[in-house]
Amino acid sequence: MQHFKALIQQFAQHFDTPHFPEHPLHLYQPCDYFLSLGGKRIRPVLCLLGNDLFAPLHPDVYELATAVELFHNFTLIHDDIMDDASLRRGMETVHTKYGTNVALLSGDVMLIRAYEYINRLQPHYLQRILTIFNTTAKQVCEGQQLDMDFEKYTNVSFDEYVHMIGLKTSVLLAGSLEMGGIIGGASDSDLAHLYQFGLNLGIAFQIQDDYLDAFGNPETFGKEVGGDIKQNKKTFLLIHALDVANAEQRQQLYQLMEQNPPDKVAQILSIFTACNVDAWANSLKENYLQKAYAHLEAIQVAPERKIALQELAAYLIVRVQ
Amino acid sequence: MQHFKALIQQFAQHFDTPHFPEHPLHLYQPCDYFLSLGGKRIRPVLCLLGNDLFAPLHPDVYELATAVELFHNFTLIHDDIMDDASLRRGMETVHTKYGTNVALLSGDVMLIRAYEYINRLQPHYLQRILTIFNTTAKQVCEGQQLDMDFEKYTNVSFDEYVHMIGLKTSVLLAGSLEMGGIIGGASDSDLAHLYQFGLNLGIAFQIQDDYLDAFGNPETFGKEVGGDIKQNKKTFLLIHALDVANAEQRQQLYQLMEQNPPDKVAQILSIFTACNVDAWANSLKENYLQKAYAHLEAIQVAPERKIALQELAAYLIVRVQ
Repeated sequence: MQHFKALIQQFAQHFDTPHFPEHPLHLYQPCDYFLSLGGKRIRPVLCLLGNDLFAPLHPDVYELATAVELFHNFTLIHDDIMDDASLRRGMETVHTKYGTNVALLSGDVMLIRAYEYINRLQPHYLQRILTIFNTTAKQVCEGQQLDMDFEKYTNVSFDEYVHMIGLKTSVLLAGSLEMGGIIGGASDSDLAHLYQFGLNLGIAFQIQDDYLDAFGNPETFGKEVGGDIKQNKKTFLLIHALDVANAEQRQQLYQLMEQNPPDKVAQILSIFTACNVDAWANSLKENYLQKAYAHLEAIQVAPERKIALQELAAYLIVRVQ
Repeated sequence: MQHFKALIQQFAQHFDTPHFPEHPLHLYQPCDYFLSLGGKRIRPVLCLLGNDLFAPLHPDVYELATAVELFHNFTLIHDDIMDDASLRRGMETVHTKYGTNVALLSGDVMLIRAYEYINRLQPHYLQRILTIFNTTAKQVCEGQQLDMDFEKYTNVSFDEYVHMIGLKTSVLLAGSLEMGGIIGGASDSDLAHLYQFGLNLGIAFQIQDDYLDAFGNPETFGKEVGGDIKQNKKTFLLIHALDVANAEQRQQLYQLMEQNPPDKVAQILSIFTACNVDAWANSLKENYLQKAYAHLEAIQVAPERKIALQELAAYLIVRVQ
């Protein structure tokens, strides 16, 4: 059993190698540029932790983790085009720096490169892992499409939002753990619990992300507080506020979103508070976290092997007492 | 041994099935739309022919052929975005009909779907075929990038152009044959010849395509004659004309490309003719075709098994006596 921060470092060392040839320069330089922006590397470390839960790390798990991280970066490059985002991790996005056509094609080739790493896995679990990788990849695309669809909807239900977040964010966390678990030799039942652990942890993380956007400390929150509110983004908070608000509050919310007054963020926050959205979000997050822990609990390995995953969960999710 | 036209029909029947679920509608409907536009299905039939050359068709080859056709359509959807092409096969392109973001994401998911079909292959050759599929896919991206790069260059050499065309067009023909050959149980040496047959045939085909754009019969050529000339596209013809033209002709060519006079196509064509570019192109095409046939010849199977591939080559390449 290894500490997850040690595994992050181990993966970072392994990943810090050229993944692309030099030529054609305009295809591969943008790939190298984007990878050089860094990232928390949570998903590849989940692959390692999935393996580590059941057995010492197998060399194959680094190939898998590299594939997962390249896949994740491919989605970010293409998402940035779709969202027309100009900055990522404080640096220019690929399409801003190199143009949309280059970003499109560099993203494509990064996805293909991910499959090259998958293809290095041992034949006896290649097909099984490739199945999960493909399914997860498709689901992430589906989640991104639903997210874009929801921008145009007036109303998105709580269930629809959970479904979208599950696809867009959680399945890759869950799939990373599961694929790592396969390399570690886990049983089907343990794999199912591991997957559910990742899925529920991912949703708890998104609830926290939505919460921090509204109620986070501007000094410690990485992004601008109130960014989602300004953009009328459907979040757990807004969807719930519209669900529980009285008629007057609901009308106010719709009006504020339509008219965008200068004090929009403050006004919407005060309605959120009046509706107890903050306490609700914390309790919802805690529920998903508890579900995640229950699945981790059910995995048939010695409790000390689970410490790293518990630590990772605690690192990702700050609990409010 | 089967006739290639019968195989096209067999594949078309097999391919005519839903490849995507219904939801999310905005992700998968554009995929179905694009596939419904049809196409010659040459690449999947090359998979079938590669198998058929060595052994009766194995059910797996249809999975491979489907993957190849989905991959090819993914590249077309993304290429149309990059080229800002509004029509494909006389119908609206995906990004014109549904928007760029949808076309981007639908292309992505079509590529992932291709890998799902690859993953249905028998484990004993999965890794080997996936290696070729990945390499080919990367090379096609490299070819597309070089093609975009060349648009901005004043001069592209003959060798650079052959290299780009090889990547953009020929490797997928060659790879389709080779992967089909693996399913058919071909030897390494036969596979190498089969690959070279496809590679050279692809270049011959591109020379013909470039030739027809300039000298084709407007009534039988599917596209507008002179389209490449209007766009100053580097083609085999233009590159050779610039190589062999005298100083005056060369200056005229550059001037015509810069100034775009109304009779540009006619004037450039008359320089092409003065430089014997038409005869040169036909002889170059014949050279590549002969190389292709020599590799087909070298494959160690009974001559009658090769008839379908010879017929396909004759169907693709019209020989000028």
